[in-house]
Amino acid sequence: MDALLQDLFTTEAMREVFAPRMRVQRMLDFEAALARAEARCGVIPAEAAELIGRACVAEDFDLDALGAAAVGGGNLAIPLVAALTARVAVESTEAAGYVHWGATSQDVIDTSLVLQLREALRRIGQQLMALAGCAAALADAHRGTVMAGRTLLQQALPVTFGLKAAGWLDALIRHQGRISSIRESALALQFGGAAGTLASLGESGPAVATALAEELQLALPALPWHAQRDRLCETATTLGLLTGSVGKIARDVALMMQTELGEVLEPGAPGKGGSSTMPHKRNPVGCTVAVAAATRVPGLVSTMLSAMLQEHERGAGGWHAEWDTLPEIVLLASGALAHMTTVLKDLEVHPLRMRENLDATHGLLMAEAVTMALAPRLGRGEAHRLVEAACRRAVEQKQPLLAVLVADAHVSALLTAAQLEQLLQPQAYLGSSHSFIDAVLKLHST
Amino acid sequence: MDALLQDLFTTEAMREVFAPRMRVQRMLDFEAALARAEARCGVIPAEAAELIGRACVAEDFDLDALGAAAVGGGNLAIPLVAALTARVAVESTEAAGYVHWGATSQDVIDTSLVLQLREALRRIGQQLMALAGCAAALADAHRGTVMAGRTLLQQALPVTFGLKAAGWLDALIRHQGRISSIRESALALQFGGAAGTLASLGESGPAVATALAEELQLALPALPWHAQRDRLCETATTLGLLTGSVGKIARDVALMMQTELGEVLEPGAPGKGGSSTMPHKRNPVGCTVAVAAATRVPGLVSTMLSAMLQEHERGAGGWHAEWDTLPEIVLLASGALAHMTTVLKDLEVHPLRMRENLDATHGLLMAEAVTMALAPRLGRGEAHRLVEAACRRAVEQKQPLLAVLVADAHVSALLTAAQLEQLLQPQAYLGSSHSFIDAVLKLHST
Amino acid sequence: MDALLQDLFTTEAMREVFAPRMRVQRMLDFEAALARAEARCGVIPAEAAELIGRACVAEDFDLDALGAAAVGGGNLAIPLVAALTARVAVESTEAAGYVHWGATSQDVIDTSLVLQLREALRRIGQQLMALAGCAAALADAHRGTVMAGRTLLQQALPVTFGLKAAGWLDALIRHQGRISSIRESALALQFGGAAGTLASLGESGPAVATALAEELQLALPALPWHAQRDRLCETATTLGLLTGSVGKIARDVALMMQTELGEVLEPGAPGKGGSSTMPHKRNPVGCTVAVAAATRVPGLVSTMLSAMLQEHERGAGGWHAEWDTLPEIVLLASGALAHMTTVLKDLEVHPLRMRENLDATHGLLMAEAVTMALAPRLGRGEAHRLVEAACRRAVEQKQPLLAVLVADAHVSALLTAAQLEQLLQPQAYLGSSHSFIDAVLKLHST
Amino acid sequence: MDALLQDLFTTEAMREVFAPRMRVQRMLDFEAALARAEARCGVIPAEAAELIGRACVAEDFDLDALGAAAVGGGNLAIPLVAALTARVAVESTEAAGYVHWGATSQDVIDTSLVLQLREALRRIGQQLMALAGCAAALADAHRGTVMAGRTLLQQALPVTFGLKAAGWLDALIRHQGRISSIRESALALQFGGAAGTLASLGESGPAVATALAEELQLALPALPWHAQRDRLCETATTLGLLTGSVGKIARDVALMMQTELGEVLEPGAPGKGGSSTMPHKRNPVGCTVAVAAATRVPGLVSTMLSAMLQEHERGAGGWHAEWDTLPEIVLLASGALAHMTTVLKDLEVHPLRMRENLDATHGLLMAEAVTMALAPRLGRGEAHRLVEAACRRAVEQKQPLLAVLVADAHVSALLTAAQLEQLLQPQAYLGSSHSFIDAVLKLHST
Repeated sequence: MDALLQDLFTTEAMREVFAPRMRVQRMLDFEAALARAEARCGVIPAEAAELIGRACVAEDFDLDALGAAAVGGGNLAIPLVAALTARVAVESTEAAGYVHWGATSQDVIDTSLVLQLREALRRIGQQLMALAGCAAALADAHRGTVMAGRTLLQQALPVTFGLKAAGWLDALIRHQGRISSIRESALALQFGGAAGTLASLGESGPAVATALAEELQLALPALPWHAQRDRLCETATTLGLLTGSVGKIARDVALMMQTELGEVLEPGAPGKGGSSTMPHKRNPVGCTVAVAAATRVPGLVSTMLSAMLQEHERGAGGWHAEWDTLPEIVLLASGALAHMTTVLKDLEVHPLRMRENLDATHGLLMAEAVTMALAPRLGRGEAHRLVEAACRRAVEQKQPLLAVLVADAHVSALLTAAQLEQLLQPQAYLGSSHSFIDAVLKLHST
Repeated sequence: MDALLQDLFTTEAMREVFAPRMRVQRMLDFEAALARAEARCGVIPAEAAELIGRACVAEDFDLDALGAAAVGGGNLAIPLVAALTARVAVESTEAAGYVHWGATSQDVIDTSLVLQLREALRRIGQQLMALAGCAAALADAHRGTVMAGRTLLQQALPVTFGLKAAGWLDALIRHQGRISSIRESALALQFGGAAGTLASLGESGPAVATALAEELQLALPALPWHAQRDRLCETATTLGLLTGSVGKIARDVALMMQTELGEVLEPGAPGKGGSSTMPHKRNPVGCTVAVAAATRVPGLVSTMLSAMLQEHERGAGGWHAEWDTLPEIVLLASGALAHMTTVLKDLEVHPLRMRENLDATHGLLMAEAVTMALAPRLGRGEAHRLVEAACRRAVEQKQPLLAVLVADAHVSALLTAAQLEQLLQPQAYLGSSHSFIDAVLKLHST
Repeated sequence: MDALLQDLFTTEAMREVFAPRMRVQRMLDFEAALARAEARCGVIPAEAAELIGRACVAEDFDLDALGAAAVGGGNLAIPLVAALTARVAVESTEAAGYVHWGATSQDVIDTSLVLQLREALRRIGQQLMALAGCAAALADAHRGTVMAGRTLLQQALPVTFGLKAAGWLDALIRHQGRISSIRESALALQFGGAAGTLASLGESGPAVATALAEELQLALPALPWHAQRDRLCETATTLGLLTGSVGKIARDVALMMQTELGEVLEPGAPGKGGSSTMPHKRNPVGCTVAVAAATRVPGLVSTMLSAMLQEHERGAGGWHAEWDTLPEIVLLASGALAHMTTVLKDLEVHPLRMRENLDATHGLLMAEAVTMALAPRLGRGEAHRLVEAACRRAVEQKQPLLAVLVADAHVSALLTAAQLEQLLQPQAYLGSSHSFIDAVLKLHST
Repeated sequence: MDALLQDLFTTEAMREVFAPRMRVQRMLDFEAALARAEARCGVIPAEAAELIGRACVAEDFDLDALGAAAVGGGNLAIPLVAALTARVAVESTEAAGYVHWGATSQDVIDTSLVLQLREALRRIGQQLMALAGCAAALADAHRGTVMAGRTLLQQALPVTFGLKAAGWLDALIRHQGRISSIRESALALQFGGAAGTLASLGESGPAVATALAEELQLALPALPWHAQRDRLCETATTLGLLTGSVGKIARDVALMMQTELGEVLEPGAPGKGGSSTMPHKRNPVGCTVAVAAATRVPGLVSTMLSAMLQEHERGAGGWHAEWDTLPEIVLLASGALAHMTTVLKDLEVHPLRMRENLDATHGLLMAEAVTMALAPRLGRGEAHRLVEAACRRAVEQKQPLLAVLVADAHVSALLTAAQLEQLLQPQAYLGSSHSFIDAVLKLHST
C-alpha cells in the first residue's frame, strides 16, 4: 500500500501488525520457539536454544539488507536465517549450527504470517464488535423513524431507519461468527521441513511439532500444509465477505447522504469532508473509503483463490502471490471497519428529511395499505383496480392520494376520510418491522 | 454454460438441479408452500391454498414465454406469478387473488435459489465424500511408495505418494466441514414482502414466516435479507475454496503424468484421453477440466463479492449479477469433483517410475541424511561442508553420491560403505510421514 | 448462461452467433476451408475437398451426441472430426482420409471461435454506433439543460445534461476505436498441427496456411499461437473496458431516476419496469441489467488473464477455461449495449426536475460564481470569506442565498440585486461546457 | 507493496517512479504548469506563477503530514494544495490566492498519475525491448535445437527450442505495439474544475487547458474525463495482457527446469536459487516471481474494471479504488519483465537433455512421420493401422519403434531400415518451424 495513502485506507494499529519490523519479529518468534521446543525435546542443547532466543530481536536486524537479499533465494527466510545464524555465531558457533534446525523457509514464513493473522483477527473482531454496537444503537434508537424503503433505487414502501440498521447489524453478527470460527480453525502451525516430512528430525518430528505448537499457542495440524492453502484462503474469503457487508452499509449511507435526500450525514469534523466554498456539502469520505475497499478486496480474494493450485510440496508462484495479497485484504477490511464505525457512531440522522422524502410521492407509497383495507369487502381484484385508478389520477392531477381517495365515491362509501388518513400513515404500515428489529437486537445481545 | 460443453464441465445430476424447469418448479414450490403457510395461519382460505398448490406444476408452464417475459419486469418472478395467477383463475378468481399473497419477487427468487442450493450442497457433500474416500485409499495404499518430494518444481527430499495423497485428503476433510457448516448456516428462508417489512400481512407476518420456513424446512432468519447477501456469497466462497483444493490435486496429477515423469496415469477408457497416432500418450483430460474449473471459479467468486454492495432494500444490478454466477460456481465445483473422483478412483500408479525419478539425481536427494549422520561426530558445519563437496563432485563426475562418499577418506573413516548405502535409502529418510498419514486417516474415519 | 435468463441479459442476435449449432457450423467451415485450401495447394485431391465441403453442414450433426462425446477426449473437435469423417466416408473412404488433414483440435476450435468473434465484433460495432448516436443526440439536445453536477454523490456545481451525455459519448467514441482496432489485430487464423509445426504437411505448410487464411478471410499470423492467448484476451479486455463504460452510463441513469431526483425515466412500455400497485414507480430495468453485466464482466476478464499461463505448446486447463468465458463476456457486453440503447433512445428527460434539484440548495451551488465576481475588487481571500459566511447564514436561516447576499451590506455595496440574481443563474456559470460538447460531437461526426 | 518484498517483486527504477516523493513532485509539477499556463493566458499574474513554480519542490513538503491530512478530505490533493498555498503565502499572499486556480483535486491527482504512467510506460517499453531481444536471440540460436513439443503436458511431436522462443517473441512483439499504442492514446491531461466545466475560468477554460497540455506535453482530450476511466483502465488491461504473456514464458521455463527434464536452467549466481545441501537444485526464482506477478495482476485488473462505474461527475469509491491498484499493476508487470529478462539473457540451455527427453519414448513421437511416408502407398487408413500396431508393440515390449518397424514384414517391404531410421529423426519432421521462426524474427527486426 502506498505510504501516502495508508493513513486514509488503513488503521495504524493494523499496519503495525504487518509492518516490516513486525514481520521479521514474528519470523524470529518462530525461530526462538522452535529452538525452545527442540531443546525441550532433547533435539538441540538447551544452551543453544537460550542463545538463539536471545538473538531473536528484530531491532537488531537490518531490514533493508534482508529485503535486498530476498531477491537471491526468492524469499525472506533464507537471508533472515543466515543473519540470525551469524548473530548467534558471535556467541557460539555450536549454537549457530542449531538455528532453524529441521525447518524450511516455508515453515517460518507461513507460521509467522499465521501469528500476524492471529493478532489481526483479534483486532478485526474488536472492530467488528464496535461497528455492530453502532448499528445496534441505530436500530434501537430509530426503530420508529419512518423512511422510504427503496428497491432498485425507487421508493417502494415505508420502512424505518432502525430496520435498515437492523439489516446491517444482522449481517455483522454473522460476520462475528465467521471471524470467531476462523480464529479457531485457520490459525495452524506450519512445520514440515524441506518436503513436509520432518525427515531431518528423525523420530522426534511429532514431539517437536507438538512442543512448537504449544510454544506458539497455535493449533497443531494433522500434517504440514505447505501446498494446501485453504486455511489461509478462508481467512481471505471471510474478510472478503465482511468487507462486502461493510461496503453495503457505506453505499447505503452515501446514497442517503445525497444532497437531494439529506437523510443522514457523516459526522462533521474540522477539515473533514467539508468544502469551504460549499458549506452545504458534506462529502461521504468514510463511506467512499469503505466502498473503495469493498471494490478492491474481491479482486484480491480471487488472487488468493487462483493461487491455490500450488505444485507438489511447495508451489512455484502461487505461494509467493499470497505474500502481499493477504495482508492487503486484512488492511483494507480493517480500514473499512474503522471508517464505518466512525461514520455510524456519530451519524447525523435527519428524521424530518426522511419523512419529507417519504411524502414526496403524496401518499402513493401507501396505496397498498388502502388496497388491503378494501380487499375484504370488495375482493382483492376490485380493490386493486380502484386504488390503482386513484393512484393514476393522483399522479396525473398532482394531488395527494388521500384527496383523490376521499373524492372517490366507491372508496368513500366504504372508508371514511379519517380512516383513509389513518391508513395512509406510514407508521401504521410497518408490518413486522419492530418484531424483526427485536429479533436482531436479541441476537446481538447474546 | 454452453450446451455443447456442459457434459465436459459439469455433471448431469447437478445440471438437473439448476435446469430451467427445476428453477421454475422451485419457485412454484415456494408459492405453494406460501399458500399453505398462509392458510395455516388463517391469512388466506384453505381452498385457495389447495387450488394454488395444485397449479404449482412446472410442466404446465411455458418456459420460453416466461424467459421472454422476464425482460419487461427485469426478473422471472413477475411473469411466473402472473402465469400462476392465470392458471389458478381458471378454477377460481378468488383463489387467484391469493397467489403470492404478501410476497415480493425477491422472496420467491431467493428462496427458490436456496432450495436449489440445498439440493446442490447435499450432492456436493456426497461428491466430496467420494473424492475423499479415493484420496484416503491412495494415502493408505501408498504410504510406503517412495517418490521425490518437489518444491518449486525441483526435487527436494523423498516423500511417499501416500503422504502426498494424505495432504490432498487433509484439505478435503476441511472442505467437508465447511460444506456441512454452510448447509446449516447459509440456507435461510427469504420472505419480507416489497420492502422487507411484511407490511401487507399486518400482524401475521412472523407467524406466516415461521410456518413458511417449516413448510420448506428452511432456517428462519431474524429478518429478511434482501440486500444482505453474505449467506449466498459464503456459499460461493466456500465452493471457491473447495475448487481450489480440487484444482491443486489436478495440477499435481497432471504434472506427475508428464511423459518424462510417468508416475501416474489417469485411468484409460475407450476414446478417453488417448491418441490413436500416439498410443504412449494419455492426456490428463480429467485434470485439465478440473484445472479449468479452478481457473474459472475465482473470477466468479469475485463477481459475487463485488455484487454485495446492494443498494437499500433491493439492489439495482448486484442482485441480478448473482443469478447466473452462483449456479455456475456450483456446476464447476461439481464438475471438478466428479472428474477428479474418476481420476483418483482408478489412477494408474507407477511406483517404479517414482523410484526411478527419485534416483535420477544419483543419491543427491539423500545428501541431507548423510550430513545428519556425520553431524554428531564432526559438528554440523564440518559435516555439511564435507557432504556438500561430495555432492559437487558427484555432479561434476556424473557419479553416484554413494561412490563418491565411499571414496572420500574423511567420510569413510566414520561411516562404512554399508552404513552409507543404508543412509542413502530414501525409505529410511521419511521422517514423520507415516505418523502424518495416520493422523489424517484417523481424521477421515471419524 | 441460464436459458430462462438469456432473454434478459443478452440479445437474440448475439446468442445466435454463439449458439451450439453455429459453433459447430463454424468448426465445419474451418474443415471445409482447410480441405479447399489443401486442394488448391495440391496436398489433397480436389474431389476429396469437394466431398468434405459438402458434408460440412451443421444441421446434419447430432449436437447432443457431440457434447456427450467431448467428455472422452476433452474437446469438441475430436468427436466432430470423427463424425465428419464418418459422414464423408459414406461417399468415399479415400476422401474421408483427408478430413482435418494436417490440423489439430486446437486449430479448428480456436479458428472457429475467431470466426464467431468476427461476427460478434461486427455486431458490437453496430450496437456501439447506435448507442453513441443516442448519446450524441442527448448531448446536442440537452446542451443547455441545466442540472446539478455531482461529485461523491453531492451536488457540486451546475452542469448540463448535455455535458453529461457528452462525457458518455466521448468514452463510447474511444471504444469504437478499440473495437475497430481489435477487428484488425485480434482475428487471426489458428493453424499449426499437433505441435505448431505443421509437420505433417511437409514443405506445404506455409502455402496451405496462406490459402486457408484467404479462404476464411482471416489474418495470417507469423506462426501458430496455440499457447499465446493475448489476441483472444485482448478481445476480452476490450469488451471489459466497453462494458465498464456502458455500466457507468447505466449507474448514472439509475441514480437520476431515483424517486427523489426524478430527472430522467427509462422509457415506459406495457409491463416494463412498472408496478401495478405503485404507478409512480418506474424501475430502472435496463440500467439494472447493464450494471449487472458490468459487475459480472470484470471477474470473467480476470479469468481470461489468469488462463494465459498455458503450458508449452498447448495448455492443460487454461485453454479450456476460455471456452465458456469469452463468449459470456461478448454476450454480456452486447446485452448491456442493447439495454442502454433502448434506455437512452427514448429516455424521458425532465428538465424541470433537474432545475428543481439544482435549486434545492437555494443557490448555494452558485456561491463560487459570486466569489469570482467579488474577487477582483476584494481580493480572492476576502471575497471567499464574505460568500462563505453568507452561505452559512443561508443554510442556518433556510433562506435563499440571493436574499442573504442582497441583505449583506458589504456585498450589496459592490453588486446590485440584479447583478447578484444574474450571477446566481446556473446557466451563466457553465464555463466551457458548450465548447466541450462541440468538441465531442465533432469527434463523433468524423 | 510490502517494503521487505519490494526488492523481490519490483524494480528499483519503477518503484522510484511511484515513490511517495515522486507522486508529490508530479502533483506539484501539475500545479506549477497550471500556474504557468494561466499566466500565459492572462488569467493569473506572471509573478504569481513564478512564485508558485518556485515553491513546487517536493523535498520541501512533509510527506507524513500530507498522508495523515489526506484522511480528512479523502484525498492527497486537499492537504497538498493547502501546504503549497501556505508556502507561497510566505512570499506573497496574493500569489498564494492563485494556487490551484480553477482546478479541482481530481485534476491534480489524475494528471500527476498520468505523468507517472508516462514515465512508467517508457520504462516498460524499454524492458519489453530487452526481453524481446533475449527471446529473439534464443529463437535464432536454437532454431535447430530439437526438443519435444508438449500438449497438455504430454509429449506430442518434435519442435525446436527456437520455435518455442519464437512463440514467446511473437507475443512480446504484439505487446510492444500495444504499449506504443497506449502511450499515444491513454496519456491525456485531466483538467475540468469542480464539476468538469472549468466554470471558474469563465471564457478562458479552453485556452488554459490547451496551454496546460502543452506545458505538460500531454494530449488534450475533448473534455475532462473525471468519471470516464477507460483510458486509465486500458493501461491496466494492457499491462495485464503483457504480464500474462511474461508469466507464460516463466511457466514454460520453470517446467523445463524440472529436475526430471533439466532442459534449461535459470542462470546461476552466488546465493541465487541454489541450495547448499542440494547442489543439484537450482530453484526457478525468477520464473517463480514472474508467475506470482501473473497470478496477482488479473485480480487487480478486475478491480480496475469493477471501479469504472463511477457516479456522475466524480465517483464515490471507484476512483479511490484505483489509486493503489494501477501502480501495483505497473510495478508487478515491470518486476516480471525484469526477472524474465535476467532469466532468458543467460539461460543455460541443455540441448542434450532436450534430445534425451525426446528419445525417452523410443521413437513413438515420430510415428506420425512413418504413417505419412506409408500413406501414399497403402492408403492413409491402412498406414495408420500398421503404425499404430507397431507403436503398441514397442510400448508393450519396451523396444525402440525403429526396431519394431524394421522387424515388421509389411513395413519393411516398403521402407528400408535406413529409410525408417531417417524418418524417425526428429529434425527431419519439423515442418514449417524454420519458416515460422524467420517470420517472427523478421517482424522483430522491423
